[in-house]
This record gives sequence, structure tokens and C-alpha cells, in this order.
Amino acid sequence: MSLVVQKYGGSSVADAQCIKRVAQRIVATKKAGHEVVVVVSAMGDTTDDLRDLAQQVSPLPPPRELDMLLTAGERISMALLAMAIANLGQTAKSYTGSQAGVLTTSVHGKAKIIDITPGRIRKALDEGAIAIVAGFQGVSQDTKEITTLGRGASDTTAVALAAALDADVCEIYTDVDGVFTADPRVVPTARRMPRISYAEMLEMAACGSKVLHLRCVEYARRYGVPIHVRSSFSNQPGTWVADADTYQAAVEKGLVDAEAAEGVEMEQAIISGVAHDRSEAKITVVAVPDKVGEAARIFSTLATAEINLDMIVQNVSGVATGRTDISFSLPREDGQTAMNALAKIKEEVGFEQLLYDDRIGKVSLIGAGMRTNPGVAARFFAAVAEAGVNIEMISTSEIRVSVVVDEDDVDNAVAAAHHAFELDADEVEAVVYGGTGR
Amino acid sequence: MSLVVQKYGGSSVADAQCIKRVAQRIVATKKAGHEVVVVVSAMGDTTDDLRDLAQQVSPLPPPRELDMLLTAGERISMALLAMAIANLGQTAKSYTGSQAGVLTTSVHGKAKIIDITPGRIRKALDEGAIAIVAGFQGVSQDTKEITTLGRGASDTTAVALAAALDADVCEIYTDVDGVFTADPRVVPTARRMPRISYAEMLEMAACGSKVLHLRCVEYARRYGVPIHVRSSFSNQPGTWVADADTYQAAVEKGLVDAEAAEGVEMEQAIISGVAHDRSEAKITVVAVPDKVGEAARIFSTLATAEINLDMIVQNVSGVATGRTDISFSLPREDGQTAMNALAKIKEEVGFEQLLYDDRIGKVSLIGAGMRTNPGVAARFFAAVAEAGVNIEMISTSEIRVSVVVDEDDVDNAVAAAHHAFELDADEVEAVVYGGTGR
Repeated sequence: MSLVVQKYGGSSVADAQCIKRVAQRIVATKKAGHEVVVVVSAMGDTTDDLRDLAQQVSPLPPPRELDMLLTAGERISMALLAMAIANLGQTAKSYTGSQAGVLTTSVHGKAKIIDITPGRIRKALDEGAIAIVAGFQGVSQDTKEITTLGRGASDTTAVALAAALDADVCEIYTDVDGVFTADPRVVPTARRMPRISYAEMLEMAACGSKVLHLRCVEYARRYGVPIHVRSSFSNQPGTWVADADTYQAAVEKGLVDAEAAEGVEMEQAIISGVAHDRSEAKITVVAVPDKVGEAARIFSTLATAEINLDMIVQNVSGVATGRTDISFSLPREDGQTAMNALAKIKEEVGFEQLLYDDRIGKVSLIGAGMRTNPGVAARFFAAVAEAGVNIEMISTSEIRVSVVVDEDDVDNAVAAAHHAFELDADEVEAVVYGGTGR
Repeated sequence: MSLVVQKYGGSSVADAQCIKRVAQRIVATKKAGHEVVVVVSAMGDTTDDLRDLAQQVSPLPPPRELDMLLTAGERISMALLAMAIANLGQTAKSYTGSQAGVLTTSVHGKAKIIDITPGRIRKALDEGAIAIVAGFQGVSQDTKEITTLGRGASDTTAVALAAALDADVCEIYTDVDGVFTADPRVVPTARRMPRISYAEMLEMAACGSKVLHLRCVEYARRYGVPIHVRSSFSNQPGTWVADADTYQAAVEKGLVDAEAAEGVEMEQAIISGVAHDRSEAKITVVAVPDKVGEAARIFSTLATAEINLDMIVQNVSGVATGRTDISFSLPREDGQTAMNALAKIKEEVGFEQLLYDDRIGKVSLIGAGMRTNPGVAARFFAAVAEAGVNIEMISTSEIRVSVVVDEDDVDNAVAAAHHAFELDADEVEAVVYGGTGR
């Protein structure tokens, strides 16, 4: 008997019909002889609707109360799901984050999970019940206040709960059939990856892939929890996010579809996939005096303003002028804050002006095989250039190469890279089932 | 400094505008120098909407999960109310029934309050905050499961919380201007009562007055909590539900509007008001053998089926037949169950047949002055007879006389009784503001 944690997103439980379909899937898993814990998000647009309601009452709602409000969303979906399961003859009990022992920091709206003490969940399982747990929420360890974990964090709840319960697999149900070599809306011939390593998936998530939340993958890697990404709208085999040994263990436990498992390791390519991200902006600080400490002054100012920079490029200093340009990319939502913070130190640092560009996009090539295959970056740049796309910035890690291009060129660059590394499938594999529901 | 508990029903917080108006009233109370605890129901029709959602998923939802679902309703309204108060510059913190220490029995859907341990509420008040508490819900003392208290029980939460916090007054805000001598929709000249005793209010509630829930009045009497019934849509003085000494204490604390307080005790009349109830049905067991134990057999059967009888009438036995008819009234919703239970003992008891009549209504005259004024019942019956209304059943208590009449005659009987005891106001006082919100 395996312990399976399943997570269903908002689009999977959008209405009564969806909830009943999900209930059938859960009951089928239970009847296959597994212990089942389910983590569920709020129905469809509930969270956004509740935010709208808050806005009607207050332009700046206190974070504690906003968390109290938003946590009503999962309360509704989890209770309904438990009812639908009961209808099918199985016992199900729903638990709030607090009841499930999800202990967090006390930062309302973006609390982090510190620990999970799933005593009541374990007890429910021991009694033969299916346990339904509210995603996205917890209770602060210090103040005992209700907290939320931030958007997309239901995935993290599921993985953390799987780790705490020593589950055999954490199944994340979403509205796509798995993780693809590129976004199928951009590259229709994108291929489903049967398996991807934690390290590669981390880079994918950090570079704009929206299938899994970054923190959730980090958590899975730290605790060695195998994640199985699947669609709740189909029975496709999906994608396993796991290292080779973890995956092998799942195969041996019979948790991997036998046909799908065949040849998975054979397929290990140099490049796993191409990710893209349109959520960043670029700031250029023009004509910074090329003296020791000036760059540090700029970046410490940004750090104080709690802005996470992504790429940083410093041009070679002009010999005649003794000045240099410094460019960096950052989340668009932090653009205004960063510009304000830098404007305040203009005189002190002595730079000439600030440029702001939010019409950029980032395209990233990810693959563990890069480590042992030189020339990957050159081939990537050549493909992008052949597509007529100008590269504005470059950054690399051991298993990733990223370029910043004009926003309008993102699709072209993704397709060119995908094609250059022979990632295209023979036929269209991907089906997009609904909204993102994340 | 007084401690004021305020309770707002669903119609008072039906939308964002209503919530903002209620927030202003709460802040005004706080600024007048009082400590304020607010008990709030779910917004407008939220509870019914959630029930509908449950029905879409399951015809017979498990009670535990139904409670989990329904408690989302107050979670939403209380968080929004706290936000609206914060907007006005005061600190407000919302608490679920569980957080507020509302300990109940473990019967889902109709749990009873066992105790309230309002440690977190007291702490919030000590920190200068306004505490908002979810009505209608609690946590079971034994199983630590979330429970609901049944319809209308937010009033009870408020009074129980007022008792636990030793509050100076429990203000119940509703959509009428107080308790009237009759339902203003039936008798437009009904008069607002400035004060009514607990005993009289208990009879009013038991006889169909919907202003306050019966259990709430029982709780208030037991703990001597003065209730001030007011409209959240006006600034009318409302009605105090309190005995003379409790009321006098509130006057001395300056909690009663001075003008409204003048001459309240002078007005103490023989009759407080006329209540009516259209929610009952009548069952007649025809031709019961007039032997010892047969009536007991019938009523023990009904007690086993957990049916609360109201009035019982046994006709004089027919000398020739040795048989008698037994009639009783009961809540219409229990009619089917009662008929089924009685049909099963037909042979055993030997009665002839069962009659069922749900087209009845009960009209009750209530007044503490009855005790010392003989002839009240006779005057009541005469007034009803003069209005051409036939009386089917009669029951009395020390401070009440009730008659059962045809459902169509209820309005006539109420108006006749109201007029006979000179309860009519010189001009129309009552305004009905919206739905019942209960």
C-alpha cells in the first residue's frame, strides 16, 4: 500500500461537475489500494472574487484580515469535495491548513511553511478515511494567526505534506498533460517530457515555466519527494519530476504506468527544454563613474528596497569618458520601486540617467547535458541570430543559458531554439484544457 | 467605560455598502468610549447559496462537511467588516467561533454552546482593538471539530459572549426598529415596546415572534444580560429586553437614550403584545379507547420520534362509545414524521383514524400583568369571537393565552386582540427595512 498525495488546482474544481469528476479520480486511487491525501485550491476564480470584494470595502485591507477572507475559498472547495467523495461511498474528511498542522512564518499573504505536524491527517488515514487538506493556507507558529502562502503555493502545501507524511508520490493535477519541452501555445510541436530532474525543473520554473511553482520544486528536491505532474482532464501519463533513483523507486512500487516508463532514461537529451518569461523589465543606469564602490552603492540600494535582480550586465568602460553603463533585469512589478530608489542616489553616485524598458522577454535553454557538451551556448545564439532576433543580455548557469530579447521576438526565439536542438515532436502532443487555474 | 457586544444579522451586512455603514456604527460606539465586540452573520443569502452548492454536489452531505462549508460564510463577512473598520482608522481583528473560544456540543448543524472561553477576545480588547466574532459557529469541546449552531443562533452567540465577557449590554441589530406589540405587517398600528421582560420575551419568541431567537432570550435571562434590539438601518431607540433591575442598571450607566428612557416603567401594561405563528400543524387521533395508558402510549411514541408538541387537547369521552379524540399541535416540519410514527401504532392502540391539518395558525396574548388581572382570557376570547373567528384549541401559561384558529383568520384575530387591549398606536410607528436577514 502506497501513500499518494494528490493536489488539484482551481480549474480542476471550478464547479460542481468538476468536483464530482475529481472525486471519482480520488475514489479510484483509494480503491486501487492506496492511502490518499488530497490538497485542493479554491474553486476557479473564487480567490480573485474574494479579492474584488475586499477592494470594494477597503483599498488597502489589513493583511491579517485579507488572509482570513481568502482562506474561505479552500474551505468551500474542500468541504464540497469531501461531500462528493462521500456520495461515492468513501469517507472523506476536510481539514483547514491549521487543522492539518501546516505551521508557517507570520508574514500574512506570503507566509512560508516552517513545518507540518500532520497528526490529524495521519489519524484520518489510519481510520480508513481520505483526508482533504486546504492548500495555500496555514497557521503561524508564533502568533497562531491564519496565514496564506501566496499564489501557486498549494503545490508547495502538497509537496510539504507528502514529505511530512513520507508519501510515495505527490501527484500535481493541472490543466496541461505534463511538462513540455516548450510552452505548447508558443511551440505547437512541443514534446511532453516523461521525466525531468529536480535541478532542471528548478531552472524551468525560475525561467518562466508556470507548470510548477519554484518553491514547490525546491521543497521536493530537498526532501526527495517524487512529483507526478498530470492533467485532471485526461489520463495521459504526464511528467515525473524526480532524480533517476527516486524515479526508479516509484517504478518499482508500480506507481509509474508501465508503458510510459519504458525507455524513459534512454531519452535523456542534452537539452530538456526551452522556457520563456515575459514578466521582467530592464533598467539601465547610464554613465556611472567607473570607480570602485559605485556599482556596489547601486546594488546595495536595490537590496535595501528588497528587489530581486535577475541578470546584471556591465559594459566595458569607455576609455575616454571613464564611465560605464550598468543594466539589470528585474520583475516588472518591482520596476517602479527600483526606479524611485535609484533616482534618490543619482547625485550621490553621479550617473547621468536611468532608462526603463518593460518590453523585453527572456528565453532560456535548460539541460543537464550541457555540463558535458560544450558548444551548446554557441549553437543557441546562432539559432536565435538566424531567426533575426537581437540578443540584449546573456546569463548562464551550469545547466542553463538565458538571453533577453525584444518582447515581440520571444516566440520566434523560442521556436528557433526548440528546432535547433531537435526537440520537436513528429505530431502535436499537447492539449491545453482550460484556464491556468493557478 | 462599558463593554458593548453588538450583533449584526445577514441583511445588515448584505453587501459592501451595508458593511461600510455597519463599520461606521461600530466605530462610533468605540469612539464614544466603549469596548466593542461584534458578532456577525454571513452576508445576505450566502448561507443559502452555500447550501445550494452543497446540494449540487451531494443530495445528503455529511453534516461535518456541511458545517465546514457553511462556516465559510461568516469568515467572509467578518474579515470584510474588519477591513471596513480599519479603513476608518480603528484596529479590528476577526475571530472564528473556534478562535473566540465558542465551545459546543458535537452535534453538527445544531450544536449547543457549552461554554465560551474568550481569552483571545479579551486580549484584543485590552490591546485597544475591536473584536469581530463569527456568529453561528463554534468548535466541539470533545472532538475539536467545527460546528454550527443552527439557524438564528448568531443572536445566541452574541448573548453568550456578552455573558462570558461580563458585557454591559448586548445590542442585537436587525431590520426592524425593535419589538412591537404585534407584527407591523399584520397590524400597521402596532406600537414599539420600550422595554419587555425576559419572561414575556420568551413567550413572544415561543409564540412566533421572529425578532429574537428563543435560545438567545433563555441565555440572556439565565445570565442577566440586557439585550437592546435595534435596527441597523435607523437610529430609533429600539426595545430593551431586560428585567426592571437590569434595565435600571443600564440607565444608570448611560446606555439608554435619556429621552427614550423617560416614563418607560410607567407604561407597564397588563398586556405586552400579540404574537402569531403560522408554522404549526394539528394532528387529531380519532376515537382513542378511553383507557388508562392509551394517551401515554401515543405521546411516548411521539417523544421517541423526537417531536416537540405544543398544545394538547383531549375531548371529553363520549359516554356511549367509551372513546375520545386527542388533538395536538406541532411544528409543520415534523408533521410527516409524526404521522408515520402514529400510523405504526394504530392497531396496538386501537384508535380509528388520524387527521392532519396544516392550515392552522396560533395567536397568543402575552403580558406579565395577566397574573394579577383576572378576566384577560375572557376578554381575548370575546374579541376573537366578535371578529367572527372560530377557536379550535386553547392553551395558557401564567403570562400567556394562546388560541389555534384557521390559518386564514390569523390576521383578523391578531388585529381584534390588539385593538381589544388598546395596544394600537396613534400613528404608524413601524418601518420594515428589508428582508428578515435571519
